[in-house]
Amino acid sequence: MTGATSGPGADRWARAGLTRIVEPGDELVGRWLRQRGASALLRALSGPGEPPDGASAERIAGYRLRATGLDPSADLTGAAEAGARFVCPGDREWPGQLDDLGDARPIGLWVRGRPSLRIWALRSVAVVGARACTDYGAHVAATLGAGLAERGWVVVSGGAYGVDAAAHRGALAAGGATICVLASGVDSPYPRGHAELIGRIAEQGLVVSELPSGDHPTRSRFVLRNRVIAALTRGTVVVEAQYRSGSLVTARHARELGRSTMGVPGPVTSGLSAGVHELLRGEAVLVTDADEVAELVGSIGDLAPERSGPVVARDLLHPAAARVLEALPARGGVSGRDVARASGTRPEEVVNRLYELQSLGFVERIGERWQLAAPPGPSANARRGGP
Amino acid sequence: MTGATSGPGADRWARAGLTRIVEPGDELVGRWLRQRGASALLRALSGPGEPPDGASAERIAGYRLRATGLDPSADLTGAAEAGARFVCPGDREWPGQLDDLGDARPIGLWVRGRPSLRIWALRSVAVVGARACTDYGAHVAATLGAGLAERGWVVVSGGAYGVDAAAHRGALAAGGATICVLASGVDSPYPRGHAELIGRIAEQGLVVSELPSGDHPTRSRFVLRNRVIAALTRGTVVVEAQYRSGSLVTARHARELGRSTMGVPGPVTSGLSAGVHELLRGEAVLVTDADEVAELVGSIGDLAPERSGPVVARDLLHPAAARVLEALPARGGVSGRDVARASGTRPEEVVNRLYELQSLGFVERIGERWQLAAPPGPSANARRGGP
Repeated sequence: MTGATSGPGADRWARAGLTRIVEPGDELVGRWLRQRGASALLRALSGPGEPPDGASAERIAGYRLRATGLDPSADLTGAAEAGARFVCPGDREWPGQLDDLGDARPIGLWVRGRPSLRIWALRSVAVVGARACTDYGAHVAATLGAGLAERGWVVVSGGAYGVDAAAHRGALAAGGATICVLASGVDSPYPRGHAELIGRIAEQGLVVSELPSGDHPTRSRFVLRNRVIAALTRGTVVVEAQYRSGSLVTARHARELGRSTMGVPGPVTSGLSAGVHELLRGEAVLVTDADEVAELVGSIGDLAPERSGPVVARDLLHPAAARVLEALPARGGVSGRDVARASGTRPEEVVNRLYELQSLGFVERIGERWQLAAPPGPSANARRGGP
Repeated sequence: MTGATSGPGADRWARAGLTRIVEPGDELVGRWLRQRGASALLRALSGPGEPPDGASAERIAGYRLRATGLDPSADLTGAAEAGARFVCPGDREWPGQLDDLGDARPIGLWVRGRPSLRIWALRSVAVVGARACTDYGAHVAATLGAGLAERGWVVVSGGAYGVDAAAHRGALAAGGATICVLASGVDSPYPRGHAELIGRIAEQGLVVSELPSGDHPTRSRFVLRNRVIAALTRGTVVVEAQYRSGSLVTARHARELGRSTMGVPGPVTSGLSAGVHELLRGEAVLVTDADEVAELVGSIGDLAPERSGPVVARDLLHPAAARVLEALPARGGVSGRDVARASGTRPEEVVNRLYELQSLGFVERIGERWQLAAPPGPSANARRGGP
C-alpha cells in the first residue's frame, strides 16, 4: 500500500481504501472511524500494528486479507478516468442528511453523473418495491416516477428489476431527475440486464454506491444499501412488496430516521401487496398518487427550504447555473430545450442546473415547463426572521 | 285514529304511529319525543291541538296530512300477521347501543326473523360498499362475510346490489348469521331484484327497518338508514366506495359513535377504491381479511363481554336455548346439524340459538363447528372483580 498517508488528501485517500476492506453500514467500524480518524483506522485494519478495541482476531485477519494489494490512489485515479468521483463527509457535495445514520453513515460514496448529489438529494423521494412486481405495480411505479419528476422531485431507487426500474424509467421519460443507489460498484451495475438503464441514469442523473469499483452485491449489501436510500431522501414510497421483503427494510429505516414512510395499496388478493398493507396497518401513510406523495414530503421542512425564496445569494451560484437562471423569462414558463437554446448550454447540463436551481429556491417546475420561483411572501419572510 | 292511547301498550302504539308520520333520524322529533313522550307527541303531531315548540307550520301541515287515516293498531296487527314485530326502546329485544344515537335514535324498529335483535347485534360487524362494485369488490365482500360468520360474527349490511349482497350471501353460505337493515318497510324489500335474498335473510337471520309496512326508500332514507347500521354494530368495514358514496357516510357515523372504522384497499387505478383510500388516509384502519376485522372489533369490550364466561345464569336461558346447549358435548366441536339432531330442534332454530348462546358466552364457533366455551380463566374472573 503506497500513497497519501498524510496531508490534505489523506482523509479522502484513507476513506477510499476503507471502502475496499470494510463492509457498508458496520457500526463498529463507524465508531472506530469516529474515534481514530480514517488514516489511523486504515493503518490499524490493514497494517501489522495495534488493532482497534473490540475487534476479534478473525475480523482483523479478514481485513488484513482484503488489504493485500490495497491501492487507494489507483482506485481514485481509475474512478476519475471512468467518469466517477469519491464524495466524502466534509466535501461540498456530501449530503448532510446521511449523517443521521450515525455510526452507520457511509464512509464515502462513489458517484457517477454530472449533478451535485447534495443538491439533488435535498428534494428527493425514494420509490422502491418488488422485483417480481405485477403489471399493476410497474404501472403505478412508472406513473409515480413520472408524476414526481413533473412536480420537480428527484426519484431515488435501487436500479433493480420491477418497481425500481419502472420508477427510474418513469422519471427519465418525463425528462426528470433520478438517482440510482447500487449495492455494487458504480462501474459494475447489477443486475447485468440493467446495464443500459443504469448507464442512462449515469448520463442524465446520478449513480451512487458505497462500494468501490468492481465490487459485486451480496445479500447483506442489498439490505444495507437500503439504509442509504432511506437516509438520502425525504421519504420512501413502497409499491408492491411481499411480507419480509427488502423494500420494507427501506421503509423501516425511513421511519426510524424520521422520514415519511408511504405505501401504495393494491388488491388484498395479491400477495405482492401484502407487505405494503402490513406497513399501512402500522405507521406508514397510504398514498395513491404523486400529489399525495409530494404533499407529505413537501411538508417536511428540515432538509430543504421550500417556496420561501432562494437559500444562497444569486452571486454565489456556479457560473453555469447563473447562466441558466439568466435564460429564464421574467414571467411564464419555458421548456428545458428553450432554456438550453437561450443559455447556450447542452440540454443534459440544463436539466442538472435547473434541478439545482430548484433545490436552491430560484426556479420551479410546473408540469413540462420551468419558471422563476415566486418571491417569498411576507409570511415566508416573517418565518425567516427578516423583512 | 283509534286505539290504545293510554295503558301499558300506549307507548308502543304511539311509536308505531309515529314511524308512519315522521322521517327516520330527525333530531328535532327525537327531542320532542324525549320531552313529551310518544303518546303526547303523536297527539300533538296528528291532532288539532298545540304543536311542539320549533315546529314550522309547514312541518305540522305535513305531519297532519300523513296522519290522515293513521291506524297504528292495524299496522301492529298486520305486521304480526306477516311475521314481523315492532321493537321499541325499553323492550327486552331493544339493542341498547342504538341509544348512542341520542335524539337521532330510531323511534322503534320493525323486525322480521326469529333471532333476538339485541343478542345478535351484540356481536355484529357491518360490511358495506358500492352497488356497482367490481368482481374484486364482490369477491372480497363475500370472503369477508363468510370469514366473519365462521368466526362467530353477525354480518350486518343494507341488502343493496353489489357489496352488500355479496356480504350477506357470504355469511349465509357459511351457515352464518346476517342482518339486513332496509330503507323501506320490511315487507317491501328494496331493491325488488333482491326480494328472494332478503326473504332468505328473514328466514335465516333478521330483516330490520325504521319504516313501517309498505313504505318505500328515498334518497334521505338511504342515507339515514346508514346511521342504524353504524350504531347497531361494533364496527363498519367499507369494501369499494367511490368518492362521496353512501358507504363513507356509514363509516363516518361509525367513527363518530366510537365504533371501529375499517376499509379494504384495492388498486389505486380503480375509482371504486378511491373513496376507501380516502377513508384510509383519515382515521380508518386498513384491513385485508376477516381475522384483522375480528381482531379490531373483538377488542372493543364495552358492547359485549368476550371470552370471559356467560353473562346470564344458565337457568335463565330460554328453554329452546337451554335444550340446544344441553345437546353440545362436554368436549370437542360438533356441526349445527348434529346439534339439531341431538336436541330435536329445527336446523334454522338451532343456528339462531347457537348465536344467542355465543353472544351470552356459553358456546363458541370454530370454523364449521360449535363447542362449549372454555370457562373463564383466573384473569377474566379478576377483571370482573370476583372468584
